[in-house]
Amino acid sequence: MAVNGEMLLGNRAVTGSGAPEYAQNPATGERIEPAFRGASKGDVQLACNLAASAFDACRNTSIEKRATFLETIAEEILALGDALVQRAIAESGLPQMRIEGERGRTMAQLKLFASVVRSGRWLDVRVDPPMPDRAPLPRPDLRVRHIPLGPVAVFGASNFPLAFSVAGGDTASALAAGCPVIVKAHPAHPGTSELVGKAINTAANKCSMSEGVFSLLFGGSHELGADLVANAAVKAVGFTGSRAGGLSLVKVAANRPEPIPVYAEMSSINPVFLLPNALSEKAASLAAGFVGSLAMGAGQFCTNPGLIIGLAGDALSAFIKSASASLTESPAQTMLTENIHRAYKDGVGEWSASHAVDEVATGLASTEPNRCQARIFSTTAAQFLNDDSLGNEVFGAAALIIQCESTDDFVAIAEKLEGQLTATMQLNNDDLQLAGRLLPVLERKAGRVLCNGYPTGVEVCHAMVHGGPYPATSDSRTTSVGSAAILRFLRPVCYQDLPAALLPAELEDENSLGLPRLVDGSYQS
Amino acid sequence: MAVNGEMLLGNRAVTGSGAPEYAQNPATGERIEPAFRGASKGDVQLACNLAASAFDACRNTSIEKRATFLETIAEEILALGDALVQRAIAESGLPQMRIEGERGRTMAQLKLFASVVRSGRWLDVRVDPPMPDRAPLPRPDLRVRHIPLGPVAVFGASNFPLAFSVAGGDTASALAAGCPVIVKAHPAHPGTSELVGKAINTAANKCSMSEGVFSLLFGGSHELGADLVANAAVKAVGFTGSRAGGLSLVKVAANRPEPIPVYAEMSSINPVFLLPNALSEKAASLAAGFVGSLAMGAGQFCTNPGLIIGLAGDALSAFIKSASASLTESPAQTMLTENIHRAYKDGVGEWSASHAVDEVATGLASTEPNRCQARIFSTTAAQFLNDDSLGNEVFGAAALIIQCESTDDFVAIAEKLEGQLTATMQLNNDDLQLAGRLLPVLERKAGRVLCNGYPTGVEVCHAMVHGGPYPATSDSRTTSVGSAAILRFLRPVCYQDLPAALLPAELEDENSLGLPRLVDGSYQS
Repeated sequence: MAVNGEMLLGNRAVTGSGAPEYAQNPATGERIEPAFRGASKGDVQLACNLAASAFDACRNTSIEKRATFLETIAEEILALGDALVQRAIAESGLPQMRIEGERGRTMAQLKLFASVVRSGRWLDVRVDPPMPDRAPLPRPDLRVRHIPLGPVAVFGASNFPLAFSVAGGDTASALAAGCPVIVKAHPAHPGTSELVGKAINTAANKCSMSEGVFSLLFGGSHELGADLVANAAVKAVGFTGSRAGGLSLVKVAANRPEPIPVYAEMSSINPVFLLPNALSEKAASLAAGFVGSLAMGAGQFCTNPGLIIGLAGDALSAFIKSASASLTESPAQTMLTENIHRAYKDGVGEWSASHAVDEVATGLASTEPNRCQARIFSTTAAQFLNDDSLGNEVFGAAALIIQCESTDDFVAIAEKLEGQLTATMQLNNDDLQLAGRLLPVLERKAGRVLCNGYPTGVEVCHAMVHGGPYPATSDSRTTSVGSAAILRFLRPVCYQDLPAALLPAELEDENSLGLPRLVDGSYQS
Repeated sequence: MAVNGEMLLGNRAVTGSGAPEYAQNPATGERIEPAFRGASKGDVQLACNLAASAFDACRNTSIEKRATFLETIAEEILALGDALVQRAIAESGLPQMRIEGERGRTMAQLKLFASVVRSGRWLDVRVDPPMPDRAPLPRPDLRVRHIPLGPVAVFGASNFPLAFSVAGGDTASALAAGCPVIVKAHPAHPGTSELVGKAINTAANKCSMSEGVFSLLFGGSHELGADLVANAAVKAVGFTGSRAGGLSLVKVAANRPEPIPVYAEMSSINPVFLLPNALSEKAASLAAGFVGSLAMGAGQFCTNPGLIIGLAGDALSAFIKSASASLTESPAQTMLTENIHRAYKDGVGEWSASHAVDEVATGLASTEPNRCQARIFSTTAAQFLNDDSLGNEVFGAAALIIQCESTDDFVAIAEKLEGQLTATMQLNNDDLQLAGRLLPVLERKAGRVLCNGYPTGVEVCHAMVHGGPYPATSDSRTTSVGSAAILRFLRPVCYQDLPAALLPAELEDENSLGLPRLVDGSYQS
């Protein structure tokens, strides 16, 4: 399939009317053909109208039809073959193995959500049978199921051009919930977006989904995104990206005549606490694991370990020495976009210029475009606790090591942290007492607490939480990775004394769909 | 127990420092002793500090201890005896049977949440076992449970001085989730609030809960409420009241450095569609049911039927005639407060003055203070569709009947409606086709759809939804009545590769607590 610079308004592949924009190969700085033109206000409105019109049909598809749709999307993405892989490599600068791995993850996510849909647990069916003879008043017949919120606007992320973009986790979970989806493609990978969007459209037609279940819009302006979020047809938003970008969408959504939920996954520095006994035991291997996690993918993961906390002393010195030696030989990798590279240079530049921070180690430089020179800095607990700016995310392969005077500093630093996607403790059996003090604080601060690992690598499964308190996300009550992500796009509706002829199939007495149900408070699976 | 004008800062019963405020008996207009003085900024801060300090201990209470605490609150409320009932009657103007019923409901809610806590389903435990040999990468050990959000600010509602006030649904569900609660008492019933607050405090001490699990603040100023919502220790808000009041808290919460969720249950006009065949069959009995629901409790229910939609013609005329005859003999009942009575008179005054609306019937007048003279108005579908103001709530026993030219008008009106707590269809077997057209629209507009009943009377059970799209509530994804209300105050936390010694008891391999769990995608109850 060729890349034509076309977006999708329902089934119609169209060229936008905005100024031509091009993808750029960040590894070379070269422009990639063809031109992509941004959506007009009319295009946004049309996509929204189609989604609104499709909504009742979408949400009333059978469980099996919806699951098959998700699986068919996975098949159609695979059927794009090497054209998709090569385009994604060119637009992202990511290596082939990563892109192929991401394609596999994208397909696995779609299939996971197909199985989630079939399980029926997301419906949370509850039946409280009538009690006609109850005194003083009878109890009516009450039944609950969950229905989707409505059309969802999804903003593709730059750092996962497949797994968190057009057919990524937000889209998969929203479609699984029964929501039509309108994707605003990330301008860094429009060709990848077009290919994947057309695969979704092909799957929608093969599965006889209503037109409007999916649309794809191009355009790099903030105004376009704001128009989409402000449109009355849109009922929820999924976003992965910068804090500024996420907060601007939250603001637009809150100021609508009808405010809507925004699931923005924004910024996180993912603290890693090196507990004293583990650090003494294995400073070198901890340093190797840290640098591997820090430098992976040029540090462009939401869960990149940006903050290391250790007790000042010989063991931490050994850790720093070992990490420095390793980082010094770490090759400069291509970042996703010029903007990201510029922001990275600005961020490390601020740390370099700060009197509160010392430079510890620098990775290999490169004269090629958009290369990320990895960096490690160091500061003291006292300085970190007194300077809020040291807790800001620098997106890329840069980390700050905090040297503490006492383990009380560990707790104080944990309490000082903003909300995080992850928090890590490196520990051994002799560290359990301190870990027990830290754990309750870390639970309050992060969506995922891990031990003796590094936070990069987010498993797509039932027990994952990729979320966390603000500003890691705009809504700590949810996850954007894993099967529970479907819950973001649902709301409960109660049916009281409905005649059997009107009851949704999920709520019928005979439970012919075999759904798990809570009947009069007892769970029947 | 005497009413002393004391609020509670943790275990300390104190008198506030604000100007003296008094409860008023709305039935007589008389002031009720003693004076209540509002909380200072320092009092708010102290209550919040105590709640924050208590949070980790509160959330780590055992399931059994937490459930027993809820049951003990119910017992302590009952132990207040007739003093509570008489004070609540004096402060609310509600009749004894209603207050006693509400006390029973309040206790039943607390006991329901005790059973919900014991069920453990709210923890949504998920375990994905490790796969150490998986290629290319092993899967770590991943486990999820839900933990409470943190201290919750609850705003007592005027219209349920027991069931939606100090120990009402919001407090019960927040305590069940493991959150400390800070209640801002509604100024209409401070004495009732003091008595119930002290009952909670007694229960907390009997159950050895940490000080700070509960505080009670007085004060009628908006600034006090805003200070409470803005406090960094507060992590969620429960509110039942006016649209203006709810939205002002939503705004404060959104503008915090760390925004927090607000569960505001605000306004609803609860449309009742009289489908043509049912209307022809039983106009008189439908009218009797409608007037009964409309006038009950002076119309001061969130689910009061404020909008009736019928097809113009003989049957609707018969309905109107019958409803008018009944309403004309409906006695004027005491409203909860002077402010509510004034707002009611203003609201019906606007309808009386509107050229788009005709007066249909008026209940009995009264020269006593704060009496609600019930009112029915009528308009046409065309006028309703052209005048947004006709969809505004008038809190009290006032309703608007929309006379339609065709059943297409029914669908158009349903589509025009803002979000509602409830939507009702009166129908018989010959109306099922039209009902089938209306149902998908009503599902999108309301939290509860009911047939052949009236929306007042909200059952406290598992399958209830007391919620709905904006502006019925600020968050359609939840309910404020019924067992699912606990879910509002929780967030998931994932634990990756934690040593057994650190794992929370809920996540241990052996599942000694006997919790329902999703293990590798399979539900084990």
